[in-house]
Amino acid sequence: MDRTPKIEDALTALMSLLQPDIEACNRVIMARTDSLVALIPQVAAHLIAAGVKRLPPLLAMAAARLCGYDPAGGRHVVLAACVEFIHTASSLHDDVVDESALRRGQASANAVFGNQASVLVGDFIFARAYQLMVTDGALPVIAILSGANATIAEGEVLQLMTQNDISTTEAQYLEVIHRKTAALFAAAARLGAVVAGRPASEEEALDAYGRNLGVAFQLVDDALDYSADPAVLGKTVGNDFREGKISLPVLVAIASADATERAFWKRTLGEGEQGEGDFAEARRLITLHGALEVTLSRARAYGAAALAALEPFADSAEKRAMRAVVEYCVEYRGR
Amino acid sequence: MDRTPKIEDALTALMSLLQPDIEACNRVIMARTDSLVALIPQVAAHLIAAGVKRLPPLLAMAAARLCGYDPAGGRHVVLAACVEFIHTASSLHDDVVDESALRRGQASANAVFGNQASVLVGDFIFARAYQLMVTDGALPVIAILSGANATIAEGEVLQLMTQNDISTTEAQYLEVIHRKTAALFAAAARLGAVVAGRPASEEEALDAYGRNLGVAFQLVDDALDYSADPAVLGKTVGNDFREGKISLPVLVAIASADATERAFWKRTLGEGEQGEGDFAEARRLITLHGALEVTLSRARAYGAAALAALEPFADSAEKRAMRAVVEYCVEYRGR
Repeated sequence: MDRTPKIEDALTALMSLLQPDIEACNRVIMARTDSLVALIPQVAAHLIAAGVKRLPPLLAMAAARLCGYDPAGGRHVVLAACVEFIHTASSLHDDVVDESALRRGQASANAVFGNQASVLVGDFIFARAYQLMVTDGALPVIAILSGANATIAEGEVLQLMTQNDISTTEAQYLEVIHRKTAALFAAAARLGAVVAGRPASEEEALDAYGRNLGVAFQLVDDALDYSADPAVLGKTVGNDFREGKISLPVLVAIASADATERAFWKRTLGEGEQGEGDFAEARRLITLHGALEVTLSRARAYGAAALAALEPFADSAEKRAMRAVVEYCVEYRGR
Repeated sequence: MDRTPKIEDALTALMSLLQPDIEACNRVIMARTDSLVALIPQVAAHLIAAGVKRLPPLLAMAAARLCGYDPAGGRHVVLAACVEFIHTASSLHDDVVDESALRRGQASANAVFGNQASVLVGDFIFARAYQLMVTDGALPVIAILSGANATIAEGEVLQLMTQNDISTTEAQYLEVIHRKTAALFAAAARLGAVVAGRPASEEEALDAYGRNLGVAFQLVDDALDYSADPAVLGKTVGNDFREGKISLPVLVAIASADATERAFWKRTLGEGEQGEGDFAEARRLITLHGALEVTLSRARAYGAAALAALEPFADSAEKRAMRAVVEYCVEYRGR
């Protein structure tokens, strides 16, 4: 195999490597979102049909194989489904909080089914995740995933508290994204070592891989919100701006702002008073101060740390695919 | 001890019997709702200060003592805290869904902190429940509580689906309250036998006690929504009516309705078109058709089943208190 796969092929390579696992995982997800209550499988099917690029569950399965776990055992697939459930339920609740109309190019579940159903079906899916962990039967797995679950919720609350606060520091922003995004990437990758019964050092290495990848992923996501073509990205662009979310592109632009620019950020983000043309102006200021480049270069540094964390592992198709995922996240999505 | 305590003293007797457990449980709850994210302990403290009469955690601790569990072991207190977390988080999300302004006489958390914070802090508290179960370390406990958690969410979704549907059957209504309320009562009482290592027959008996008590409790709650003085009950009266919730008092009144009355229910509950005087008219029709008496008599039947489920257990202060709780729920609250 080519050691430097085309970046465009990175996710394809990972997904092709994991194809039987992915199919098995989808079957587990479908079986476990069944319910006497008809609305629940409807919402679940909608989420699955949306074709989320489910990086956290992919990481769990890839890391298990990287650690030499025998895929015939099937636990890595079950744990990937648990990860996906926590991811899906968190996203459902996140969309309720954000009142987001689009998620990955499809109408979000809350827009289709209503906020009430999204809150409750999210709760159901969280509970199903723990029921599934019980069938797996390993307490360390439940400890890791319940810890990530609590950390994600803390990150979302923290994000809510920094919303519209233009005095947010970069450290606070990083704390938010470490918690709301990177914690689940870290937990998922760590589970690979756990399921394979590998030593703590490998757990830590995979945790570091997932955590750094997760931060890089979110940094790029935050940059894309000010740069991307919604038709390509499948996300409503300008969401963060409209919601007054304080992300790194904005923090960098604010740090270099003159008095007029500061007044603009204070009005639009701090006070949430936005009119026509304001998003275009935000993009102009962010470009003017090179804030996207700063954000993407920060993402590349986290990406490099993710790659470094993989160093101790012997070369394998899984390792190459997990390296390529980092490159995909920081280069392809960042272009 | 008097074998027939005054009904007014029933909860007092239980709470005095469990006083050291309750204090220990509150300490666990406070310690486990701590977070770097300041808003989380704020919301949690608000919930605890609201002084919820936390029947499910009380049942878990009483049942453990009933089953001869040595309270020095402390597991019953930890599991009661887990039950309370699931109860609290479900209530937080329920209030978001209902947009309820009052819960037990205090402004509800969502009214004070906003719906977004309530969704996210609820998620945090759910996750904390599972982290706490991991410290307890028994998979059967996690199986019971995650099952109840999923069932509660299903019950709430089912309730959402029957909302404003005046063709809802009594069987569908009973399914809703079995799931949304009785499942946690059943799980809590069952945990008492589990933690004491008692045989399956005692688990089943306590499950039946909790389940029947839970249904009775909810039936009385639904009757009170059309009858109670909000200053006494500490709940906004008429909530169910305003939200178009289909409860037994309404179903009984609809079953006996003439054409004019049917049109009234169709407009106010089916189509949600309500004006001044409509709640008074709903109360008049419910009284006219004896619907509260039917509802309360049904509650007493479930109460009797709860009492019958306790029969196999030897007499003890705990058993008497658990019997008195049933009487409190169906008689005192129902007056």
